[in-house]
Amino acid sequence: MEEYVIIVAGGRGVRMGSDVPKQFMLLSGRPLLFHTIEAFYRCKPDIRTVLVLPDGQRNHWRSLCSRYGFTVPHLVVSGGETRFHSVRCGLEFIEREVGGRAEALSGVFVGVHDGVRPLVDGGTITSVYERARLKNGAYPAVPITDSVRRFTDDAEGGSVTVDRTKYFLVQTPQVFRADILMEAYRQGYMPKFTDDVSVVESTGVCKPVMVEGSRRNIKVTDRFDLVIAGALMNMDLE
Amino acid sequence: MEEYVIIVAGGRGVRMGSDVPKQFMLLSGRPLLFHTIEAFYRCKPDIRTVLVLPDGQRNHWRSLCSRYGFTVPHLVVSGGETRFHSVRCGLEFIEREVGGRAEALSGVFVGVHDGVRPLVDGGTITSVYERARLKNGAYPAVPITDSVRRFTDDAEGGSVTVDRTKYFLVQTPQVFRADILMEAYRQGYMPKFTDDVSVVESTGVCKPVMVEGSRRNIKVTDRFDLVIAGALMNMDLE
Repeated sequence: MEEYVIIVAGGRGVRMGSDVPKQFMLLSGRPLLFHTIEAFYRCKPDIRTVLVLPDGQRNHWRSLCSRYGFTVPHLVVSGGETRFHSVRCGLEFIEREVGGRAEALSGVFVGVHDGVRPLVDGGTITSVYERARLKNGAYPAVPITDSVRRFTDDAEGGSVTVDRTKYFLVQTPQVFRADILMEAYRQGYMPKFTDDVSVVESTGVCKPVMVEGSRRNIKVTDRFDLVIAGALMNMDLE
Repeated sequence: MEEYVIIVAGGRGVRMGSDVPKQFMLLSGRPLLFHTIEAFYRCKPDIRTVLVLPDGQRNHWRSLCSRYGFTVPHLVVSGGETRFHSVRCGLEFIEREVGGRAEALSGVFVGVHDGVRPLVDGGTITSVYERARLKNGAYPAVPITDSVRRFTDDAEGGSVTVDRTKYFLVQTPQVFRADILMEAYRQGYMPKFTDDVSVVESTGVCKPVMVEGSRRNIKVTDRFDLVIAGALMNMDLE
């Protein structure tokens, strides 16, 4: 039962050396990515974690790990221009490690997770991997609670109310049988590839299934999200 | 320049007398609704605030106001079965107060706001009322940051990725010229009326316009949201 997770952390945000890339922002006093990597390790101690970082951040990452004494096992791979290319870099690494034989790869399951979702819970991780084993692909999702409108394509920028119960929000980790995910990522990049499910679906080989996600599993991309993430972490400790 | 806000607080949540209706949950030690009413008063001290409460909660509300020394001016009206009916109760009150003459009502602007959005900021309130004055109707909205999927109508419960940049989330206050809003609320209730914009639009008289909302302006409906709202309030104080 070999399992991998590719943790994609592409944030650069280094202008004039002053901004901290979002994956290194501090949550409860430690870089976001530590929490993310630990969430998978706590839930699945034998998982192989492949962290994809922009090439120029690998030294910084090494020094952060040593400064904070971060010892959770993981491998670091250099990423590409976009999220799509970074996931592909992670997959190429796994393919080399497992060996490219299809029969070996079809027993391996690979999750792809946003580095900036540090609050993913064990229940979500477990159920997404389990469902992927049964259905070849699975992803967590949550309902939309606000009213939703859609822009119409008229020149005036009009919009209409849509039925929000027909829509839902997709989170990560998105988990797939390794050979199916790798085949999907051999396609050329298209703008409609907003997440891994959309990449896999476009091959027509597999219909990933939805699993109930968690509202805690937020994407932390700025100080606003960081305040919320901090509050949710403390909520657990109560 | 007469301005009203109808604050709709329909949460019942009184089973066995043990649950606190969501509009009375404590945020920073005080009932949610106090914060909501204050947000409008701070921004527009002359606004007429009409609070619509379930009939059975009016005594409890009165005792809360006296216990906490809450003195911000507001009027209390009993609500109806659904949000739609409660807004209508608020409008009937305003109509009686202004007098039903169309020429008087066309100079009055009425906002409708969810009681459980206590973090609405002055900037949003000001700009929505201003835009409504120019365009007869306006509402705040924010973009969607997660990937979005839509259920297809096939029997297998399938779904497809949609372009999230074509969708946005609608908040309150939604503000309209009083006569237009009242006319719209004379229609019979339809399930597609999920907010006030959808009620007004269905008359074809007015195309409300969108105003940039704020991510802080969350809807607080459970303990999870309450933790987030508490963190966002403290963020302001930093």
